Amino acid sequence: MYFPSWLSQLYRGLSRPIRRTTQPIWGSLSRSLVLSSQRRNPEFSSFVVRTNTCGELRSSHLGQEVTLCGWIQYRRQNTFLVLRDFHGLVQVIIPQDESAASVRKILCEAPMESVVQVSGTVISRPAGQENPKMPTGEIEIKVKTAELLNACKKLPFEIKDFMKKTEALRLQYRYLDLRSFQMQYNLRLRSQMVMKMREYLCNLHGFVDIETPTLFKRTPGGAKEFLVPSREPGKFYSLPQSPQQFKQLLMVGGLDRYFQVARCYRDEGSRPDRQPEFTQIDIEMSFVDQTGIQSLIEGLLQYSWPNDKNPVVVPFPSMTFAEALATYGTDKPDTRFGMKIIDISDVFRNTEIGFLQDALSKPHGTVKAICIPEGAVSEVQKFFSTRNLFANFIMELKRQELIRLMETQEEDVVLLTAGEHNKACSLLGKLRLECADLLETRGVVLRDPTLFSFLWVVDFPLFLPKEENPRELESAHHPFTAPHPSDIHLLYTEPKKVRSQHYDLVLNGNEIGGGSIRIHNAELQQYILATLLKEDVKLLSHMLQALDYGAPPHGGIALGLDRLICVVTGSPSIRDVIAFPKSFRGHDLMSNTPDSIPPEELKPYHIQVSWPTDSKAAKAH
Amino acid sequence: MYFPSWLSQLYRGLSRPIRRTTQPIWGSLSRSLVLSSQRRNPEFSSFVVRTNTCGELRSSHLGQEVTLCGWIQYRRQNTFLVLRDFHGLVQVIIPQDESAASVRKILCEAPMESVVQVSGTVISRPAGQENPKMPTGEIEIKVKTAELLNACKKLPFEIKDFMKKTEALRLQYRYLDLRSFQMQYNLRLRSQMVMKMREYLCNLHGFVDIETPTLFKRTPGGAKEFLVPSREPGKFYSLPQSPQQFKQLLMVGGLDRYFQVARCYRDEGSRPDRQPEFTQIDIEMSFVDQTGIQSLIEGLLQYSWPNDKNPVVVPFPSMTFAEALATYGTDKPDTRFGMKIIDISDVFRNTEIGFLQDALSKPHGTVKAICIPEGAVSEVQKFFSTRNLFANFIMELKRQELIRLMETQEEDVVLLTAGEHNKACSLLGKLRLECADLLETRGVVLRDPTLFSFLWVVDFPLFLPKEENPRELESAHHPFTAPHPSDIHLLYTEPKKVRSQHYDLVLNGNEIGGGSIRIHNAELQQYILATLLKEDVKLLSHMLQALDYGAPPHGGIALGLDRLICVVTGSPSIRDVIAFPKSFRGHDLMSNTPDSIPPEELKPYHIQVSWPTDSKAAKAH
Repeated sequence: MYFPSWLSQLYRGLSRPIRRTTQPIWGSLSRSLVLSSQRRNPEFSSFVVRTNTCGELRSSHLGQEVTLCGWIQYRRQNTFLVLRDFHGLVQVIIPQDESAASVRKILCEAPMESVVQVSGTVISRPAGQENPKMPTGEIEIKVKTAELLNACKKLPFEIKDFMKKTEALRLQYRYLDLRSFQMQYNLRLRSQMVMKMREYLCNLHGFVDIETPTLFKRTPGGAKEFLVPSREPGKFYSLPQSPQQFKQLLMVGGLDRYFQVARCYRDEGSRPDRQPEFTQIDIEMSFVDQTGIQSLIEGLLQYSWPNDKNPVVVPFPSMTFAEALATYGTDKPDTRFGMKIIDISDVFRNTEIGFLQDALSKPHGTVKAICIPEGAVSEVQKFFSTRNLFANFIMELKRQELIRLMETQEEDVVLLTAGEHNKACSLLGKLRLECADLLETRGVVLRDPTLFSFLWVVDFPLFLPKEENPRELESAHHPFTAPHPSDIHLLYTEPKKVRSQHYDLVLNGNEIGGGSIRIHNAELQQYILATLLKEDVKLLSHMLQALDYGAPPHGGIALGLDRLICVVTGSPSIRDVIAFPKSFRGHDLMSNTPDSIPPEELKPYHIQVSWPTDSKAAKAH
Repeated sequence: MYFPSWLSQLYRGLSRPIRRTTQPIWGSLSRSLVLSSQRRNPEFSSFVVRTNTCGELRSSHLGQEVTLCGWIQYRRQNTFLVLRDFHGLVQVIIPQDESAASVRKILCEAPMESVVQVSGTVISRPAGQENPKMPTGEIEIKVKTAELLNACKKLPFEIKDFMKKTEALRLQYRYLDLRSFQMQYNLRLRSQMVMKMREYLCNLHGFVDIETPTLFKRTPGGAKEFLVPSREPGKFYSLPQSPQQFKQLLMVGGLDRYFQVARCYRDEGSRPDRQPEFTQIDIEMSFVDQTGIQSLIEGLLQYSWPNDKNPVVVPFPSMTFAEALATYGTDKPDTRFGMKIIDISDVFRNTEIGFLQDALSKPHGTVKAICIPEGAVSEVQKFFSTRNLFANFIMELKRQELIRLMETQEEDVVLLTAGEHNKACSLLGKLRLECADLLETRGVVLRDPTLFSFLWVVDFPLFLPKEENPRELESAHHPFTAPHPSDIHLLYTEPKKVRSQHYDLVLNGNEIGGGSIRIHNAELQQYILATLLKEDVKLLSHMLQALDYGAPPHGGIALGLDRLICVVTGSPSIRDVIAFPKSFRGHDLMSNTPDSIPPEELKPYHIQVSWPTDSKAAKAH
């Protein structure tokens, strides 16, 4: 980094992940919760006492005798109330005549959010009292009988305001939070989208849904795996981060089209917007290449995409990892907007500014820039105003060249970095997103939340230098990833240069999937594991053996379902698309989980707690 | 028990569970693995290099140029080979002309079970050489090009004989075992049946598929729950035995029709034919009663039932728990055959045989009997011959009365028990099944394996006396089960007499599902938990609180998917319907799981192993 003072500050500030999605514009009460992707309407009232749902009644039901069950959402002047169920709202008229005293008593005295069952007739609302914003706004229910199914105690808050409450409160009373339109919409959309994916995979393309174990063996370097003590002293299961080994073994077993909506586990402590357990659409195929997997996924997303969203356009564009890094400073570019990175090294090739000269003279040294349109009249200007004196100074020197090269307009702001290529790009990539946030606070819509911009990122490096010891290699993704066919010869000479057959799927700047063609040759797998990665091959001996017994060529992919649904619904957090998520710190705030265990319940598992003795460790928790 | 010597021996012998299913008659190679329930054929070769599957080629494909990928199943005299994939077998002619030397070399030299890709033309088999037992038996492939995709090393056994190998070997090389027709058929049937269930629930009846956490809090008395240490000292997650609490909380949250194909966990040590993780079709509905759930499930099974099996007849018959016990000696009667239990107490009411008199004089004292048809000419006779002198003696005394009452024929055998009603019935229930086994070894088909005999068992007791302290109560099923409406008053006076709204679904003598209407009243739930069951209510305070905030009346059920598929496919063990099952002792024999963990990987979880010190504990493992 070559603007050490303010840039490094900025870099640290940016190292917290930036949420790319925008707050959704939630539908009013008129929003139908029944997604239109359904080919025929399911029977929502089969097998139960209600005849209809609250949300479905229309003028076409006039005169029908109905029985409804729902929660009291609202009541006015003891004359009518609004009843709510999973499907919507309906207005119920409280009878005023003396003969209906018991019905009136029930409906007037039941606290808000009590559950009642009412039977009555669907009638028209009086002329002028229709509510066009409400799907059931033309009708109301003239009640004949009512029953209080369960009274509600005083709530800690009002349901309709729940989204405004703190997230801790929402999680503590999750069963109340789930009554909100937003949560019900999100969970239903999730269910329907997954159902469509299953139809596409199973019914259209012959995939077999196979469940794989979650009590498994630790994987080499699987430091993020939860442990499960067994009843044998010192022996543990691990909760795997993905069904990777099993899906490959299924290919060896000849089940050539596998998928699973798989529960996976990752213990990452308290990384924000991650969950200790998460779900992926896990897919593996035999006799396939990269193009085949990509076409499958494009078709899958197109088929399962909700009808009430902007459609998915296929095929998705593709970009190499190198290009993504050079142009967007990240391996998951948000391609909904420009502000691309431009190499301006040549402008400063003969500069006399010492640190730029210094930067350019080092290996992979570059000067890079992005142009923030109208940045000078926005928050961007304020953000950088106290920090960019130095930059101004550079700009004066090279102003004309830069304006030409960057095609800047008046009131644009240009940000520069100088240094090693990858780092310079990566920093600008973060600034690009931060500036987009700043511009959007001013009302500029850079990233249209209704737009879905998919991108394949390909040709990743197969290996990366280990962070703790850059002379050793680690897998950029996982050790089963096949090398790029053009680069196999480099494995034995310059392994760092080998590209992989890994591919990532990016949506609006979020990595929503990744996969690869796998190694199906035991010798090659052994060479990579033992010689290049120096892994303990014993832990994977079953995999090496399996490859030797007629393993077919195969590849696959996994889509992160929580993240995908989060982007599709425009939710601010994946916690909004999971029924019972954990908090940042991995807690279930509703039930107080994780919890203490009586020592006698640890005995069968031959473990005991190592209580931290020093204050530092105690403090850390 | 009143025939203490031989009967108690027998009882012990019978206490191992008896497998009720019969070995299936597996289809020959002519069996189509594509189940006919598919409404249109999926595209099995989309996105991949093959143009067709090995199993699909027929006379209608004659003249087509095809590319196939598969395993070499068989080769004869270097003139043809049989190629196998997930969909079947096809015959491939190895070209003999000089110009095809390289193709011939590949196909003749590749070891069995190697994976090859061949391209060629579909031609007729020469007249007289068709194989009517093989779906592709009319055609063969005239190969033009061939590629060895992966060679296979010498296998530890032949694939086709694999089912004959020991189960330990099958589990060790599970990826080879999966290549067997049986395993592929079972896994595909499972996938398709679950898919149909999803269609029924989601698309036809508006259920929402919602995933619930598996990292949760321990439940009261949840001694069979696996623990997962967290990074907080002394704090643990538990892997729940079912999503019971979550499904009820979803109802409180207003999501009124929930289902999930849920992974569940139960640590039962080494009980045979159980798995530490298993799958259930988990369902919950609001505003429903017992009849509603039962109709839903009958429709579900009828809709999802494989077309190649005997159809499901609905509605299923129903029987009370008391009747099931009295008639079949079990709460999961196999109603495919008779041999019902008959009360013959009256025959011996005035007996002078001391121990019978003794038995009948005690509370609930009875004499019960079953009649084994033609038992005297079967293995049954041998089985009991050295033990039934005493019985013969009794029979002499009361022969005529018994023959009349039991409608016995010549050569039938009658078995008697005397003692407390439940125990006497339960013992005869076990003998009934054991005798059925013995009769079937002689070739009598008592339990038709193609017949599916469903039965609801209802009106279970709500509580049972605790085994370790019969003066205290425990839930017969779980503490959220609602009492029978007619028995609620007994809760406060004679709780042991209260029947529950629990229902079990039994198929051919296997419990394949169970559920109940739940308690939705917080006060009642509190009374049962705290006063009657004396549970630690703190662990469930979130549930009690949730019931207070407008919980709707609700109920549900869970079907044991592994067991159901096991019965449907007629498999001898649930391990045959699970891709990667654990062994009896909970081990994955393929990967050596569970395994040791380096001590440093235990540190983040603040646990250490308590190594057993005494030889007894060491021996136990």
